[in-house]
Amino acid sequence: MRMYDLIEKKKRGGTLEKEEIRAMIRGFVAGEIPDYQMSAMLMAICFQGMSDEETTCLTLEMAHSGDVMDLSPIEGFKVDKHSTGGVGDKTTLIAGPIVASLGVRVAKMSGRGLGHTGGTIDKLEAIPGFQTALDTERFFEIVRRVGIAVAGQSGNLVPADKKLYALRDVTATVDSIPLIASSIMSKKLAAGSDGIVLDVKTGSGAFMKTLEDSVTLAGKMVAIGTGAGRVCTALITDMDVPLGYAIGNALEVEESIRVLDGGGPEDLREVSLRLAAEMLHTAGRGSETQCYELAAGALRDRSALRTFAEMIRAQGGDGRVAKEPDRLAKAPFCREVKAEESGYVAHMDTEACGIASVLLKAGRSTKDDVIDPAAGIVLKKKYGDAVAKGETLACLYASDEALFAQAEQTLRRAYRLEPARPAARRWIYARVSREGTQRFE
Amino acid sequence: MRMYDLIEKKKRGGTLEKEEIRAMIRGFVAGEIPDYQMSAMLMAICFQGMSDEETTCLTLEMAHSGDVMDLSPIEGFKVDKHSTGGVGDKTTLIAGPIVASLGVRVAKMSGRGLGHTGGTIDKLEAIPGFQTALDTERFFEIVRRVGIAVAGQSGNLVPADKKLYALRDVTATVDSIPLIASSIMSKKLAAGSDGIVLDVKTGSGAFMKTLEDSVTLAGKMVAIGTGAGRVCTALITDMDVPLGYAIGNALEVEESIRVLDGGGPEDLREVSLRLAAEMLHTAGRGSETQCYELAAGALRDRSALRTFAEMIRAQGGDGRVAKEPDRLAKAPFCREVKAEESGYVAHMDTEACGIASVLLKAGRSTKDDVIDPAAGIVLKKKYGDAVAKGETLACLYASDEALFAQAEQTLRRAYRLEPARPAARRWIYARVSREGTQRFE
Repeated sequence: MRMYDLIEKKKRGGTLEKEEIRAMIRGFVAGEIPDYQMSAMLMAICFQGMSDEETTCLTLEMAHSGDVMDLSPIEGFKVDKHSTGGVGDKTTLIAGPIVASLGVRVAKMSGRGLGHTGGTIDKLEAIPGFQTALDTERFFEIVRRVGIAVAGQSGNLVPADKKLYALRDVTATVDSIPLIASSIMSKKLAAGSDGIVLDVKTGSGAFMKTLEDSVTLAGKMVAIGTGAGRVCTALITDMDVPLGYAIGNALEVEESIRVLDGGGPEDLREVSLRLAAEMLHTAGRGSETQCYELAAGALRDRSALRTFAEMIRAQGGDGRVAKEPDRLAKAPFCREVKAEESGYVAHMDTEACGIASVLLKAGRSTKDDVIDPAAGIVLKKKYGDAVAKGETLACLYASDEALFAQAEQTLRRAYRLEPARPAARRWIYARVSREGTQRFE
Repeated sequence: MRMYDLIEKKKRGGTLEKEEIRAMIRGFVAGEIPDYQMSAMLMAICFQGMSDEETTCLTLEMAHSGDVMDLSPIEGFKVDKHSTGGVGDKTTLIAGPIVASLGVRVAKMSGRGLGHTGGTIDKLEAIPGFQTALDTERFFEIVRRVGIAVAGQSGNLVPADKKLYALRDVTATVDSIPLIASSIMSKKLAAGSDGIVLDVKTGSGAFMKTLEDSVTLAGKMVAIGTGAGRVCTALITDMDVPLGYAIGNALEVEESIRVLDGGGPEDLREVSLRLAAEMLHTAGRGSETQCYELAAGALRDRSALRTFAEMIRAQGGDGRVAKEPDRLAKAPFCREVKAEESGYVAHMDTEACGIASVLLKAGRSTKDDVIDPAAGIVLKKKYGDAVAKGETLACLYASDEALFAQAEQTLRRAYRLEPARPAARRWIYARVSREGTQRFE
């Protein structure tokens, strides 16, 4: 088997066999297949696609390219959740504790943010003392005792994905559905949970800008997950508008705590509850409606908030934050962005909102950037809201006033006002399971 | 300008601007753009193509990536000829001397053979003493005095093509018409001639297997050549059958001498005359019919043969070869391939004929292979010929009898006999000039 022949085959629209995919991934990870051949293959895949069977083979081969977590020492059903990335998406901080408080284990590996989207590890590290580098023993111990632990990805988890993603990132081959699906699912499979709930974001702040692409990606991932013997479902949720009002690490922790304490923004609460319900359903805790009720109860009686506080303490953080979010870092400077005209917020460029937060140092434009946990944005107006000229659209927070000018300009351009109130939008568009796609109209 | 953005643009079907192509080629040659980005770009070009304007920009940028020959110290119109490569294609050895004997200068850079196709430099080096490594001064002196010189390509001619071709060769991105056209034409433009006649081969022994692809490629190359201010035309000629009967370096020189001496195979004579006529026409020596008559006269009165002998002597070779081709190297072993059935030769896999000659060491399968100038094949039966069981199809020549078995098997499979005589075929299918495509039906 020569890599040349595989590239040629895929270029002509052929189907790669299991053994061919295996040899390709092993050779690439071993450094025997050079980057320039793999990048030609990746581009050919962008044009010719991959069948579900090819994508599943690729994913399994990637998942087994390094360490694979064995969660069997933890009793019971373990459920994982993954978001394809968004702006203001702090649902893991809410749905995770809800599910854990109801007795379903969440042993979660998470990542850092890059570009306009944030990462759960960054958000948690905004809590004073919180440790995300956990060895396996401690990770297992916390999951057993608290019901949930969230750790950074270990060194040798899915090295094939690290190497492939680094190459895709510089060769304009990121936006291929089979490549996205295999990248995400290889990490989820290697992370070892029995159930996987996917939150596939759609809209201006998501990687998938259209609902159809999001449904296709979700279907591909659910096919891979179930094909690999996991219980796997996906929700397609809105990312045409930031989720909640807070963007930035400490600000998002604070907003999550408000939801866990029974308040918080309605969209964030609802999406978090639906994801938690899906996770519980995956674990066999009843119908979707029953699971939703269970989840809502865990917010009402504050048991999810208590679990969150326990997790913080178990991971070395200051658990008092859960009751006193004022203990979180606060930015020394604030800038209000005022509306220059009146109207209704008819469109938000959510990716631009994310970029504005990166400009304030709440996120990274390159992997090596250092982030400011206190920085970020609190929106005051979102899609559908009426705005009067001079009213505050958003408050920017930073540790350096010099950062405001460009961030303000970027955020301002993210808002489009129109005279008429726009149509109401959904927060959840569809649910994808092995049985098919259910659309919510 | 980031290479990433250019890849993304081409992937989405966009058109690269002149400045973008320039930065890309310069960056690549300078080693600033890595192979893995360029191979992704090459694959995107395979799928999305390039406009004539893009291809011309690419070609000019490649042509100027290294040394560019300035032929102005040689008086008069200089004409070049290029074949896209075939089996038994020795037309340069015939058309070149014809044209030169009629006073039109041929300052030709040529290449070595690789894979199933031969190269003019290899063929000339089969003549005892013949030197193809000429410095510019000596090259110019021979062109001035004899009218023709054929030299190997100089060290720094079109380094961009060398680097790009090496990458295409290992990433399955060779067969893209704009990439083929720019590769060929960058070398022709850098070689500095005023007129360029292209011989685009079509059929089972050519890189372009279909007439339509050959016409498209020819059109693209003629557009580039005329766009760059050269007089440029192309003939589409048959390579579904080997040209002439001899395949292998000394054998092909001998067959060329027979044509120059007024004999030789009809197909080879006719294609060579038409190419020579095209070269003369390009140089403004009259109508195509007039030029054809001039060329035929140069064969009849043996002036082309005398020019060939002069060129051999000027380049250090044994000029007596032109009158006594027996002085060429002869292989010590010969094997006759006999027909196992009767019939008419209805199809020849001409690429396989070329591969059989490589197996005899008449050609190279990798760049570093050493070739045997005496080795090769003399066909006894070609397309359309009647064959009786037991008759000789071809004679194989080699310096090692052990090479015969595999070569014979390969050559045998290249012949397909059928009971009925197949339809006669054309040798020349079309002529492409800036005015358009003229098809010969």
